[in-house]
Amino acid sequence: MNRWIGLDIGGTKILGSLYGEDDKPIAQSKKKTKAKEGIVVVLDQIFKVIDALYKEIPEIEHSEILGIGVGVPGLITTDGIVKFSPNIPFKDFELQSKIEKKYNVPVSIGNDVNVAMFGEYKFISNALYKNVLGLFIGTGIGGAIIIDSQLYIGQGAAAEFGHIVVNADGAFCGCGAQGCLEAYASKTAMQRYIETQLSKGRLSSLKDFRDTDGAVIKSSTLQNAYASNDPLAVEVIQYASKYLGIAIGSLINMFHPDLFILGGGIIESLGSEMMPLMLKEAERHAMPGLLTSVKFETSKLGDDAGVYGAFQFIKNHI
Amino acid sequence: MNRWIGLDIGGTKILGSLYGEDDKPIAQSKKKTKAKEGIVVVLDQIFKVIDALYKEIPEIEHSEILGIGVGVPGLITTDGIVKFSPNIPFKDFELQSKIEKKYNVPVSIGNDVNVAMFGEYKFISNALYKNVLGLFIGTGIGGAIIIDSQLYIGQGAAAEFGHIVVNADGAFCGCGAQGCLEAYASKTAMQRYIETQLSKGRLSSLKDFRDTDGAVIKSSTLQNAYASNDPLAVEVIQYASKYLGIAIGSLINMFHPDLFILGGGIIESLGSEMMPLMLKEAERHAMPGLLTSVKFETSKLGDDAGVYGAFQFIKNHI
Repeated sequence: MNRWIGLDIGGTKILGSLYGEDDKPIAQSKKKTKAKEGIVVVLDQIFKVIDALYKEIPEIEHSEILGIGVGVPGLITTDGIVKFSPNIPFKDFELQSKIEKKYNVPVSIGNDVNVAMFGEYKFISNALYKNVLGLFIGTGIGGAIIIDSQLYIGQGAAAEFGHIVVNADGAFCGCGAQGCLEAYASKTAMQRYIETQLSKGRLSSLKDFRDTDGAVIKSSTLQNAYASNDPLAVEVIQYASKYLGIAIGSLINMFHPDLFILGGGIIESLGSEMMPLMLKEAERHAMPGLLTSVKFETSKLGDDAGVYGAFQFIKNHI
Repeated sequence: MNRWIGLDIGGTKILGSLYGEDDKPIAQSKKKTKAKEGIVVVLDQIFKVIDALYKEIPEIEHSEILGIGVGVPGLITTDGIVKFSPNIPFKDFELQSKIEKKYNVPVSIGNDVNVAMFGEYKFISNALYKNVLGLFIGTGIGGAIIIDSQLYIGQGAAAEFGHIVVNADGAFCGCGAQGCLEAYASKTAMQRYIETQLSKGRLSSLKDFRDTDGAVIKSSTLQNAYASNDPLAVEVIQYASKYLGIAIGSLINMFHPDLFILGGGIIESLGSEMMPLMLKEAERHAMPGLLTSVKFETSKLGDDAGVYGAFQFIKNHI
């Protein structure tokens, strides 16, 4: 029976699953990334997760594991080199060839958000949808471009949808640029918006939910406040949705895709509130007739998307 | 000897060329489009251009013409139907099948700007460049997306780069939306900027070059005024270049392409002035390290791009 391993390497933990031909996980493994202990330790942690998955099946069946797919935060080249990673000390690191050499199977490495959204695509989609965009709205904003049913990464960094400029001369962004979508509509941006408004004395039920750092949101808090028409909650959700809608409109004009998948923590918790607002704004900006030709879905896999996507990514490559 | 026909259908004229295997034109033909006389007349004009090209070679060699490529302004579906065209009365018109039936050869139809930029790509490029963006800056702004050496059109309308929103709540655009690149950096937008400034009494050498409608530019006028540091000329060129640079930065973050081709009337006449300004702004907005990994070229074919692109488009399809 053919099997594949999917690996999701995060800043704090490494998740792995062994999958069978029915696309269902057979076994799972999890270790700390230990990013602060340096790259040798991190690589060892990765190997431990893979080893644990191999051990889940009899040694005689090890040759049935056909390949390993890996999602990593950061910029990954088409050769499987991690140019850099924001949370893990990879720097021009030949991660793909290192894993390939140790296990003697094909390995495919991709950006974590690219790979996770590819997983959502494979889970949601069918042959109807060949050209698909994924927009991931969490702490940061990322995405994925699927062209002719394959993940498109250009020279490696494609689909950085958080860094579409939606507002010339606009808000400064963590990337160093100005006016990026991420500076308006990520969880971080929404949080900053709320904190700034509360700190200047705006009345809002949200002020009772600040943690010790002064940061609000749990998304559930924001959701409840929005439901009870709290003015600041309504404002921040409208604000983020507007800029997301602008980006979605622009993306439709650029890609005219079959399907648009929205995912990430913000969509999981606030999708039903934000979706109509985003689509209204997207319609203002999409060219006549285009928006209605595009199907919209929200992500289905939650935290499993990374591992599942990594599995689909390698399965697709071999 | 294999031959192909390329056709560029414009609002006022239809250009056609017959090409041989060396990618050189063997014969050319040209007729008025007669768009105002209705679709039956337009189709007849198209047939006249094709007939004239067939007549350029002996009848016994007609079977050596392997296909016809066509560029048309407007939205063209993947099935070769012209959904609509801004200048020609096509409406859900099955142009591809009509030409195929009459000449009994394969026909490929694409958006005129997509096809012309594909022509530039085939002319400039070599096997090194698989993922390429074309940005066409003329009266309007359009473009082309080339993925894995093929033109990507999504459901038909992809690469409408003039309608990337670069400025939320910004200038209104002819498409009905707000903040589109085309509203800032097309020839039309630059012209409007100059007219508005002159009409409120700004001093500029450009005021001596208005035509009877009050419109300035000839690009050469603008070029000369820029060279002599005319403040308004400098201002409008900086203004358009800034927004183009923002869009280029965003496009690099989205596509991380191998090559970026800039073309169109504005680039042909003002490219050497605008290019450094655009790239400076693009660098502000591209994510760290990305801009230097992308090669830039300007278009080489001028008015021939449409016909040459249509030829390459059909040659590529068969």
